[in-house]
Amino acid sequence: DPEFDPSEHSHRRYNPLTSEWVLLAPHRAKRPWLGQVEAAEAASSPSYDEGCFLCAGNTRANGEVNPDYQGTFVFQNDFSALVPDVPEASDSDPLFRFSTERGESRVICFSADHAKTLPELSTTQIEQVISTWRDQSEELAKQYAWVQIFENKGATMGCSNPHPHGQIWAQSQLPSLVAKKQQNLQAYSTQYGGNLLADYVEKEFERQERVVVYNDDWLVVVPYWAGWPFETLLLPRFEIKRMTELSEAQQVSLAEILKQLTTCYDNLFNCSFPYSMGWQGAPYDALEHSEWRLHAHFYPPLLRSASVKKFMVGYEMLAEAQRDLTPEQAAERLRGACGAHYKLLEQ
Amino acid sequence: DPEFDPSEHSHRRYNPLTSEWVLLAPHRAKRPWLGQVEAAEAASSPSYDEGCFLCAGNTRANGEVNPDYQGTFVFQNDFSALVPDVPEASDSDPLFRFSTERGESRVICFSADHAKTLPELSTTQIEQVISTWRDQSEELAKQYAWVQIFENKGATMGCSNPHPHGQIWAQSQLPSLVAKKQQNLQAYSTQYGGNLLADYVEKEFERQERVVVYNDDWLVVVPYWAGWPFETLLLPRFEIKRMTELSEAQQVSLAEILKQLTTCYDNLFNCSFPYSMGWQGAPYDALEHSEWRLHAHFYPPLLRSASVKKFMVGYEMLAEAQRDLTPEQAAERLRGACGAHYKLLEQ
Ligand SMILES: O=P(O)(O)O[C@H]1O[C@H](CO)[C@@H](O)[C@H](O)[C@H]1O
Ligand SMILES: O=P(O)(O)O[C@H]1O[C@H](CO)[C@@H](O)[C@H](O)[C@H]1O
Repeated sequence: DPEFDPSEHSHRRYNPLTSEWVLLAPHRAKRPWLGQVEAAEAASSPSYDEGCFLCAGNTRANGEVNPDYQGTFVFQNDFSALVPDVPEASDSDPLFRFSTERGESRVICFSADHAKTLPELSTTQIEQVISTWRDQSEELAKQYAWVQIFENKGATMGCSNPHPHGQIWAQSQLPSLVAKKQQNLQAYSTQYGGNLLADYVEKEFERQERVVVYNDDWLVVVPYWAGWPFETLLLPRFEIKRMTELSEAQQVSLAEILKQLTTCYDNLFNCSFPYSMGWQGAPYDALEHSEWRLHAHFYPPLLRSASVKKFMVGYEMLAEAQRDLTPEQAAERLRGACGAHYKLLEQ
Repeated sequence: DPEFDPSEHSHRRYNPLTSEWVLLAPHRAKRPWLGQVEAAEAASSPSYDEGCFLCAGNTRANGEVNPDYQGTFVFQNDFSALVPDVPEASDSDPLFRFSTERGESRVICFSADHAKTLPELSTTQIEQVISTWRDQSEELAKQYAWVQIFENKGATMGCSNPHPHGQIWAQSQLPSLVAKKQQNLQAYSTQYGGNLLADYVEKEFERQERVVVYNDDWLVVVPYWAGWPFETLLLPRFEIKRMTELSEAQQVSLAEILKQLTTCYDNLFNCSFPYSMGWQGAPYDALEHSEWRLHAHFYPPLLRSASVKKFMVGYEMLAEAQRDLTPEQAAERLRGACGAHYKLLEQ
């Protein structure tokens, strides 16, 4: 009998954060692609675009005028999914169960420069983004148990404006995927006595094969259970439960690792790499939450090139996530793409 | 205080099949769309395409020649995610847990006509598709506990060939989403003593507000907890656990409802409506499974028009599915689109 080879044989890996498996079919990476091709992003955009509703001094859809900001700029989303005032109502019929939800949705511009995404900002500018995330979390945590910081980057990820920006949605109840993660973190701590992500970051640092970049404070891996081809998990190498606990020094080292990681991404296919990313940590409630550790997920859709993405469709929507190349192969390719940003080398 | 209005106020609805909630923000449907626009599908394709690897008589990538088939045609996927022979291996380390998986992946051509998707086939031709699904299930059930029948339709859904076809993936273990569904069906039956989907189909028939189409045997609703804008659930109005139990008469009435539903979809935005669809029923193991009822999910991505889809990104990937228009509004619009296929009216 041949021996099991993870880069050759179909197998399933378990994601302990979601308690779902992912199906790996590494041999499938060889199939030809005849399907949809993503449009190329504009090669370069101007630093200021008079039609952009995020640029400084411009007027938004609702008539408000953006201030002449430098650095970051935060405002209430003009089409918020969550709003603070909603009448309370609920029904517990098991087949028609609902409950109203209140919250806030904000937009955060990463810089006044229309053209510069995270990897192209200086680490000092990225530090400003991080401290804005921190301040916003602090403010919203006073009213809401959950503050979801995220960025949708690129048209492929539903982003409707190339101006570098992210979003912050805050709400009273824990969203489903968060509630499930909390349950899984709690179960691990009950069963094994440790912190799942603290144990995981140590083991991945030892094994190295899935590590993309790291410094004294942070480690980025393609997680063992990654669903998206070049998915990564950004983990702290120190104890921290929430964004609001970040020290000045940890913000500096975080800015460095974020610049490195997003540069590896851009260099992989020589394009502005699309992704959705977001931060998760302990809820802002009165509990201790020793089971949590702050972390960020990056979910990029590209598979083979700047124009061919992975489709999470049919089998994936009905049955289970499925991937072609292994997380180990993905990490190796990302490591190989690290270094100076490709645009600098082209000049 | 204003009263709660589900078509105005943000609220969360509970999906009892996944035990996840979905966030509804109906007021958000008003926001302008400046993002990615999907390419239009070709207005009409020829009935035979010499470059198509699914057309009768053509040679596939691996050198095999398709027979000169009429009706349906099934073959092993040339790039199968699942294969029958894989060495057994597993590890139960909670952070690096895996197990090998064996199975089969097949492709099923719905008709020899390159140009005709489900709504454009006659009900007799759709009956052939259904009986192929049934026969394939019967055959694969002898070896595998799970048989996933599905169709990815349209380039937007990762489909790489417009020739009408679906897929069948069979495997030994229950995929994650199926295992979770089984657990939820079981829990409902333990707690309430009934069958979740049997109770649901009756209640939706009474309420009518989410019904799209129905006949004596089948009912299609936009489920109360739908995540995708025009998602539907196709339910039998009689007791049936598995695809293999379908009678001749039930296959006829199923062909009729499938033709009606896919026609409503095409008519909604006057385009060949993309979606992923798939069938789920009791696993093919030795157990009774009275908690199950056969059903099909349709997950279509379009939101506002043939070219603007809903992006399940950032917040959705990290926190919870989120939708704009209510399921009740979606059902009303789909009902309004029922009738003769738009292409027939254009002629
Ligand atoms: O097998 P196909 O049609 O080439 O591939 C398509 O369906 C599969 C099953 O849902 C997905 O895993 C792929 O991402 C998608 O492109
Ligand atoms: O708020 P935006 O950027 O207009 O919208 C984007 O992000 C949201 C949050 O992930 C998604 O619900 C939308 O589908 C997506 O288009």
